[in-house]
Amino acid sequence: MSPAPDPSLFDKVVNLCKRRGFVFPSAEIYGGFRSTYDYGPVGVLLLRNVKEAWWRSMVQLRHDIVGLDAAILSPPAIWEASGHLQNFTDPLVDCRNCRERFRLDKLDDPGECPNCHAKGSFTEARHFNLMFKTYAGPVEGAGNEVYLRPETAQGMFVNFKNVLETSRKRPPFGIAQIGKSFRNEITPSNFVFRTREFEQMEMEYFVPPDEADKWFDYWCDERMQWYVDLGIPEDQLRLRPHDEEELSHYSSATSDVEFLFPWGWDELEGIANRTDYDLRQHAQASGETLDYFDPALGERYVPYVIEPAAGATRTAMAFLMAAYDEEEVAREGQGQGESRTVLRFHHRIAPYQVAVLPLSKKPELQEPANEVLGLLQPRYTCDYDETQAIGRRYRRQDELGTPWCVTIDFETLDDRAVTVRDRDSMAQDRVPIDGLLDHLEPKLS
Amino acid sequence: MSPAPDPSLFDKVVNLCKRRGFVFPSAEIYGGFRSTYDYGPVGVLLLRNVKEAWWRSMVQLRHDIVGLDAAILSPPAIWEASGHLQNFTDPLVDCRNCRERFRLDKLDDPGECPNCHAKGSFTEARHFNLMFKTYAGPVEGAGNEVYLRPETAQGMFVNFKNVLETSRKRPPFGIAQIGKSFRNEITPSNFVFRTREFEQMEMEYFVPPDEADKWFDYWCDERMQWYVDLGIPEDQLRLRPHDEEELSHYSSATSDVEFLFPWGWDELEGIANRTDYDLRQHAQASGETLDYFDPALGERYVPYVIEPAAGATRTAMAFLMAAYDEEEVAREGQGQGESRTVLRFHHRIAPYQVAVLPLSKKPELQEPANEVLGLLQPRYTCDYDETQAIGRRYRRQDELGTPWCVTIDFETLDDRAVTVRDRDSMAQDRVPIDGLLDHLEPKLS
Repeated sequence: MSPAPDPSLFDKVVNLCKRRGFVFPSAEIYGGFRSTYDYGPVGVLLLRNVKEAWWRSMVQLRHDIVGLDAAILSPPAIWEASGHLQNFTDPLVDCRNCRERFRLDKLDDPGECPNCHAKGSFTEARHFNLMFKTYAGPVEGAGNEVYLRPETAQGMFVNFKNVLETSRKRPPFGIAQIGKSFRNEITPSNFVFRTREFEQMEMEYFVPPDEADKWFDYWCDERMQWYVDLGIPEDQLRLRPHDEEELSHYSSATSDVEFLFPWGWDELEGIANRTDYDLRQHAQASGETLDYFDPALGERYVPYVIEPAAGATRTAMAFLMAAYDEEEVAREGQGQGESRTVLRFHHRIAPYQVAVLPLSKKPELQEPANEVLGLLQPRYTCDYDETQAIGRRYRRQDELGTPWCVTIDFETLDDRAVTVRDRDSMAQDRVPIDGLLDHLEPKLS
Repeated sequence: MSPAPDPSLFDKVVNLCKRRGFVFPSAEIYGGFRSTYDYGPVGVLLLRNVKEAWWRSMVQLRHDIVGLDAAILSPPAIWEASGHLQNFTDPLVDCRNCRERFRLDKLDDPGECPNCHAKGSFTEARHFNLMFKTYAGPVEGAGNEVYLRPETAQGMFVNFKNVLETSRKRPPFGIAQIGKSFRNEITPSNFVFRTREFEQMEMEYFVPPDEADKWFDYWCDERMQWYVDLGIPEDQLRLRPHDEEELSHYSSATSDVEFLFPWGWDELEGIANRTDYDLRQHAQASGETLDYFDPALGERYVPYVIEPAAGATRTAMAFLMAAYDEEEVAREGQGQGESRTVLRFHHRIAPYQVAVLPLSKKPELQEPANEVLGLLQPRYTCDYDETQAIGRRYRRQDELGTPWCVTIDFETLDDRAVTVRDRDSMAQDRVPIDGLLDHLEPKLS
């Protein structure tokens, strides 16, 4: 049985994000700018870890997928061919009474205006394109428009031939990209879930057309497993196939990886069979040949594309939601009960793998603390914190999700050993400094 | 004595970049889009390594600097306060005869039009702002303008208070950020050196005002050393202080780290004393208090900022230029002379650290090749290539700058050993598979 969503979790996580430096509203000192968010000192580490885990599984640990980093600014020709200029739109209506603008498909009662409650005051729906437009060069006007990409995928299609010619990969092979995309959403919502600027992790896997169904299934399985391996509980994940009418203009089959957010099931990633739509469109529009000659088969074909397209920012949010926990615990070292908040991140996702905590700021603890930092920093991302009572510092690290705390105390000066504390069990081990790397390595690899 | 620039190097490197998949012109199948470039399979790895080396030295190996990842889209209030709306401009003139537009400060003879040679046909100069503008939300017009950031730095200033309150860092401390910035350059030039979209690596180091000069010198030394440590020859680097009239509107002192490009000395990075200009401007414009109370001194002050601001994309280009070499060598295994091109990258900068090359595609070599990949991929970025003569594959890896090639041959089936080839000396060692990690580790760490 699937668990119920927990609506109270949303505010708890958003508050923790602000309080601990995961996410800040952009331009907050100017009253905020609800289109976008800024990732703070621990948020940027979380986001880096999400992206690194994806890149590792997609590119580093395989030899059939190469990377790419295409530009965000791109000329209209690309979006004309891809169909985005024509199809990437929302239907908008204006209220003639209050002059507010709405998405027609999001109005509960299309007869009544949600703002002023006037009836029958809407204009005809117009198609509003979600791409941001700007101008390159000193003249604003026709011929100089450029668009901020609404997806990274087109960069891979437009470079298909370049990659085929330089990388020595042959179908089935993939091109992977991590980068920002931009969509002029009418109603950004749910914290970092739907924002006008966001980060994608997309991979286009080029296959012989008759193998497309097989590879579609393969990538659905692979991608579900990735979230599970990094600590998302299986009962908070599901794979949901799109209905016929829900499919994008380029897709013959799509399944969404959905996570149980506080507001219900919602999309983390879409795995789509994009067919040969994009390569054919770009071949036709550009006049270039975008296909592959298979010397073994003696056959030329336009590859089909299986695309797992994940949102890095919303995936980071899902990891935060899934990791969040509150529990009653004995106060460490005192036996008195208290509650603690802890983020039970997988160690590859946690912003810091280790916190180094000298018991006090006294100068004699500096040398062993620096020695420990010097050992750990080349391998792990470490926090260093030397003020406040140690119990409060442990609580802070719990809220950052740091799996291991290493405490240097005055005994360290005698025994050259440190205390290693486990985030989840709060158990403490005394470990010699010289054995610290060997102690931590199996827990953090 | 300083070496002379080598103008022929430019075309050689640009050609290699295209041929081997480092850099492609964006939208090349549509005739190109000279504002931007796309980074191909090895280019994206090079760029990732440059950024990773910077992040490692700035954030991971220190405990006085934290990271940040602020949004690209930003509201006018930020750029009003920072002075960019007013000051971040180029002076442009139009030719009344041919209607072309030019940068006044780049015209050799401001009386003659370079395009049509008409004399005295220029309009008065107008100030053209270099920021890209677009609109957020469904209405284009006043109140909805947003700008693509022209530098990442303002994200750090606007979040100064958030970081101070959540990170427990105290001056002197820094905030580091890697990300894309956008400038509507009239004349993009020199390949990826000056493009409208580029990637920055910026760090704002907040210090007590009376320590600003000391920290300025410290960061000039640190940053010069970073390039040297990663393999740029010292005689191709210099530190050049700005003249009084060259200083930006926010800076009291700036020194550029310059590299000897094929067209002469040019900027990789600027190290600036931005004083308290930015924090004061944002404090005044927003009404927030952006300062620091030092409990030890019992004093409140607005920190000064020392900013090392490097270009990731142009730094990647400098690494390419510095690594490029051609030499006459004996043909490997044959004794006949030939020339080779080799990129002598530092192993942390090279796109691939190791190439795994089974001597042939015969199925019996698959198993040991997969075993070697399985050993190496979790630690190193590896290329895998199983077609063509081994000599041609070595040449390809030389042109990618791969420090080590591991060849699996038919003897491997008997002795469980592989051939490890050194890019620079081309020396070959026979190494047991079980000892491969230990053999490579000291060479690649």
